[in-house]
Amino acid sequence: MKETQSSRSERMDPLKIHRFLKGKIRISLPVERVDKEILSLLYTPGVAEVARVCAENPENTYTYTSRWNTIAVVSDGSAVLGLGNIGPYGALPVMEGKAFLFKAFADLDAFPICLSEDDEEKIIEIVKSLEPSFGGINLEDIAAPKCFRILQRLSEEMNIPVFHDDQQGTAVVVSAAFLNALKLVGKKIEEVKVVVNGIGAAGYNIVKFLLDLGVKNVVAVDRNGILNEKHPETCLNEYHLEIARITNPEGLSGGLETALEGADFFIGVSKGNIVKPEWIGKMNRKPVIFALANPTPEIDPRLAKEAGAFIVATGRSDYPNQVNNLLAFPGIMKGAVEKRSKITKNMLFSAVDAIANSCKPHPDRIIPEAFDMRVHQSVYFAVKNSS
Amino acid sequence: MKETQSSRSERMDPLKIHRFLKGKIRISLPVERVDKEILSLLYTPGVAEVARVCAENPENTYTYTSRWNTIAVVSDGSAVLGLGNIGPYGALPVMEGKAFLFKAFADLDAFPICLSEDDEEKIIEIVKSLEPSFGGINLEDIAAPKCFRILQRLSEEMNIPVFHDDQQGTAVVVSAAFLNALKLVGKKIEEVKVVVNGIGAAGYNIVKFLLDLGVKNVVAVDRNGILNEKHPETCLNEYHLEIARITNPEGLSGGLETALEGADFFIGVSKGNIVKPEWIGKMNRKPVIFALANPTPEIDPRLAKEAGAFIVATGRSDYPNQVNNLLAFPGIMKGAVEKRSKITKNMLFSAVDAIANSCKPHPDRIIPEAFDMRVHQSVYFAVKNSS
Repeated sequence: MKETQSSRSERMDPLKIHRFLKGKIRISLPVERVDKEILSLLYTPGVAEVARVCAENPENTYTYTSRWNTIAVVSDGSAVLGLGNIGPYGALPVMEGKAFLFKAFADLDAFPICLSEDDEEKIIEIVKSLEPSFGGINLEDIAAPKCFRILQRLSEEMNIPVFHDDQQGTAVVVSAAFLNALKLVGKKIEEVKVVVNGIGAAGYNIVKFLLDLGVKNVVAVDRNGILNEKHPETCLNEYHLEIARITNPEGLSGGLETALEGADFFIGVSKGNIVKPEWIGKMNRKPVIFALANPTPEIDPRLAKEAGAFIVATGRSDYPNQVNNLLAFPGIMKGAVEKRSKITKNMLFSAVDAIANSCKPHPDRIIPEAFDMRVHQSVYFAVKNSS
Repeated sequence: MKETQSSRSERMDPLKIHRFLKGKIRISLPVERVDKEILSLLYTPGVAEVARVCAENPENTYTYTSRWNTIAVVSDGSAVLGLGNIGPYGALPVMEGKAFLFKAFADLDAFPICLSEDDEEKIIEIVKSLEPSFGGINLEDIAAPKCFRILQRLSEEMNIPVFHDDQQGTAVVVSAAFLNALKLVGKKIEEVKVVVNGIGAAGYNIVKFLLDLGVKNVVAVDRNGILNEKHPETCLNEYHLEIARITNPEGLSGGLETALEGADFFIGVSKGNIVKPEWIGKMNRKPVIFALANPTPEIDPRLAKEAGAFIVATGRSDYPNQVNNLLAFPGIMKGAVEKRSKITKNMLFSAVDAIANSCKPHPDRIIPEAFDMRVHQSVYFAVKNSS
């Protein structure tokens, strides 16, 4: 009994498993046997004809090379998980893990590219230069605010889909969870007040998605309190200013506690244990709490429930309602790469609907589970067929 | 009968095979089944510990990620096969083919990186920024003379092995063939005269390797005739000048015909049909002809034999003595990446010996066949165990 437990705990050690596997991705070949004839076709002299055809029209690389199904998972390691700016070597096992997920959930061939470069302009230049090898780019774990400019520039200047999961992926999954929670509380989207706490990569996009979905009253909160365009000191950068201009219709000033008074939704993408249970008591009836900070949520889900929250979601797999990006990014990238199209708002909102409609909402199940492979299929089809 | 032939010829079309395979490499996963438990170890939350360990010491990426066995095959498409500067999209099927060969012959995970950037300095900057993702860099099909500076700078400035197959790989295989041919003609290395025609990526390195091997009389020839330091107009760039200074001890001037008078070896890495049969008659006894231009050799091998050549080698698989880079690059890169060492002269000359010693020389078999897997093993061990 003791031995079983010990060998089990050995198996459970992430370092040991990583050491044993020696990495989480491999290159493999699409043929079983390599002989002279196949080489003369796949390499010289046969490949010369293929090279000519691809040089004549770069679109042909989608037909004659692996590019049609290949993406890069790109990071500079400036905002890795909750670990912060740990650099490209620390990022590598995470980006390999992400590549693993793309393969496992969408059969996309993803390759980790960790850059020893943190200058915004140079990252843009480098990623652009990689375009011929890839059918799409998944940006990952790049710090805000530089990630905003990098995503915008690359989306404009590259001819392949560029997606930043921490921005767009999170916003898609949060939006799907929001829509299903809204159905359960029976409120109208144009009447609810939604507080978003933490206006970084995720929060910035969540706010914009909520407005696009039809929410009229969004209140954005960051380190210096409620973002208020009349009080620029509440804004830490130009992206906060942009958000201040389009949110807070009541002109609120103050901290998170003030923001939450009478609110219908709290969406936290900030840090652990910053919401007090008594604040939930001051929210509107049937309050919904998305405490998405990892690993420690903005409020302990059990405390939130006790304080009267009607629905509680977190980023963790050990509580109900895990708001998990894994629901979105495999299908979105697969669809966009096959479409050979830049990422559009329409594509992202099709993904929101596909995820929301993949489960019948219940307070303990407002979004589907990531291991339900039908979700990934639905997202993929929705994105591929959207404009 | 007719149908069989037609279906056979269909199978033999490189475009059709490439279209059918949809690319020559895939990403695959090292586990059969993906469930919640494995994900929590390979991705969040487990991967955070691995990320921390790799950030603390980048060497740990060799233990915990696929980097220990992963290389990039990098090209800007400026000198692809015999096709010239066809750009990165034309290069992609070729680099994928090269990645295929690394996997098939050395079980190395190689990924094609084709850059839409042709500026020398920017290529250097980009490749350097990719270091965290790779255990080695194989440069490929980059035009001379910029490939010389790129290789030199990257070899100095990166901490992983950087290899340029067109330079070093070709020089290794030619050197092995040269040594075995020398045994067969029974001449002393310090007494032979070797003419190298075409001082580009390959020729430049072949000359240097020959000198390192102990050849005293090398005559280098390019577009403006025999390179002669007293006649700088024979040199098209600084690399030609460098070669002029260390070759041509007799101070010869003139064209290839003059160079060949009394020569023991002709090594052509230039272009097709430029050697006349009667010139071979003016060479020393038992002349050796390496007519390595592809697809058309510098002289038709049958004509060379008729004109008195004792040994003829080409770059083609349909004649005896194919001088094929495939003999060298898989084992060299595998050895260097496992050694975690920059490419050294010692490593390359160990590879020369390993290839030369892998066959008992015969005029129609001065080097082994690339499909003899023992050669690749020998090269790999030789490089891994060299200093």
